[in-house]
Amino acid sequence: MNQTKIGIIGLGLMGGSIGLALKSLNRDYYIVGLDHNQSHLKEALELKLVDELADDVSAIEECDIIFLAVPVDAIISITKSFKNIKDSATIIDLGSTKYKISHSIPDNIRENFVAAHPMTGTENFGPSSAFMGLYYDKTLVLCDLEKSGDTQREVAKDIFKSIGMNIVYMDSKEHDIHTAYISHMPHALSYALANSVLNQEDPKNILALAGGGFQDMSRIAKSSANMWEDIFRQNKTNLLDALTHVSDELDYCKRLIEKDEFEELNQWMKKANILHKII
Amino acid sequence: MNQTKIGIIGLGLMGGSIGLALKSLNRDYYIVGLDHNQSHLKEALELKLVDELADDVSAIEECDIIFLAVPVDAIISITKSFKNIKDSATIIDLGSTKYKISHSIPDNIRENFVAAHPMTGTENFGPSSAFMGLYYDKTLVLCDLEKSGDTQREVAKDIFKSIGMNIVYMDSKEHDIHTAYISHMPHALSYALANSVLNQEDPKNILALAGGGFQDMSRIAKSSANMWEDIFRQNKTNLLDALTHVSDELDYCKRLIEKDEFEELNQWMKKANILHKII
Repeated sequence: MNQTKIGIIGLGLMGGSIGLALKSLNRDYYIVGLDHNQSHLKEALELKLVDELADDVSAIEECDIIFLAVPVDAIISITKSFKNIKDSATIIDLGSTKYKISHSIPDNIRENFVAAHPMTGTENFGPSSAFMGLYYDKTLVLCDLEKSGDTQREVAKDIFKSIGMNIVYMDSKEHDIHTAYISHMPHALSYALANSVLNQEDPKNILALAGGGFQDMSRIAKSSANMWEDIFRQNKTNLLDALTHVSDELDYCKRLIEKDEFEELNQWMKKANILHKII
Repeated sequence: MNQTKIGIIGLGLMGGSIGLALKSLNRDYYIVGLDHNQSHLKEALELKLVDELADDVSAIEECDIIFLAVPVDAIISITKSFKNIKDSATIIDLGSTKYKISHSIPDNIRENFVAAHPMTGTENFGPSSAFMGLYYDKTLVLCDLEKSGDTQREVAKDIFKSIGMNIVYMDSKEHDIHTAYISHMPHALSYALANSVLNQEDPKNILALAGGGFQDMSRIAKSSANMWEDIFRQNKTNLLDALTHVSDELDYCKRLIEKDEFEELNQWMKKANILHKII
């Protein structure tokens, strides 16, 4: 069997961790990495996230499997810039939005493309945040698979299964609605929480009291602003819907407290408790 | 040295864990527990959270140190019901609000009373949620200490230090403002998030995608509605202030997205990132 050449564009948390996970397998992979940040490139090689650094995108275009682990707007511009992709190549993106990406891929490489969203991550970023177990036993969403070629579908399923992911399939439109609620809106909430405390008179004294609850609620407010700006832009409509719903819930809670309607408030909290039974 | 008799009213997460932590020390403590829930009483004894169950409050009144680990409204009613507290007794509450409690203790036992808030907890409740390490290396806030007797101050500091807590001192009014931001409002946010997802058409399908971010943000929405109803009622004014601030932040975020002002949104998220440097 021939060696499989894998290219990873973007050597931060997601791309770096894919490199580590693939290198841990007993497979004949050779992994080439590219990042527009020079210090990240150096760091990625030192951390052995990849076997080799690519000089430019042409070295990536020679690969059999290409992962795009960059912010969601960059995913679109990179796929538009590809010139010499191999006919059999599989290009997989790892972005947090799927509809715009899935519908922006140039026709000539659409069958090469597989739209993927691994439901995993941390608030950290950059090559040093990468770790081998990021993907293990986590959910992977594959979208609009009917637009991908037969080979590419199988290549993508195989490689994600090999690193321990549990695959689910979804229309990219449905994906973006669901992730607005499960991920994008909660990030906005966390940023709002962090800023509301940081805007107080003595945030340091307040934060000195932070217990586990606050730390959990504010963790994702540490996430990369640049990455999330793009996600919020691409999933604008669904995100605004989700933000309206959570604001309505919050207003309802506030109104019940203002009016001393604590029995209703108790019922509202008991309803939220149901979450316990689902996740 | 004589044996010290310790009474714990409320044998859930907080009270049960105090029992376990004190029993792990090499001190001559004898621990008596009381709970209004009969099945909790039985469970607490089986789990060895306490040495003995009290038949009623009179057995607790005989103790040298009494912990009140019940919801914040019950703390007030129990202290009002005490009839035969020992002159030297130290009564310590573990409630999440402090102002109303500190100012509701009957004059005749106010010096016996120490207002304490351990900044620790989990979303679980009942005797089975108790664990020995809950308090270790966590922050304890002691409030209005000038209202407590000299002996009681020292007894409280000593016992919390013995289980590994880091003590800070605060006025109860200031405590309630800070905890509104660091704890009470974030609980309301988490309940709102949970309900906004549970109200969607197919919450189960959405929740199937939940990654670490959502799980963290929704964890405390599983907390006891009865306990939090009382906290929200007692800290109503400060909580409403905090809710107004976080709603304003959320509205600002929403407006920026609606108007495509993504550069400002990026700055707003970068500001939240500062949290990274503080906690």
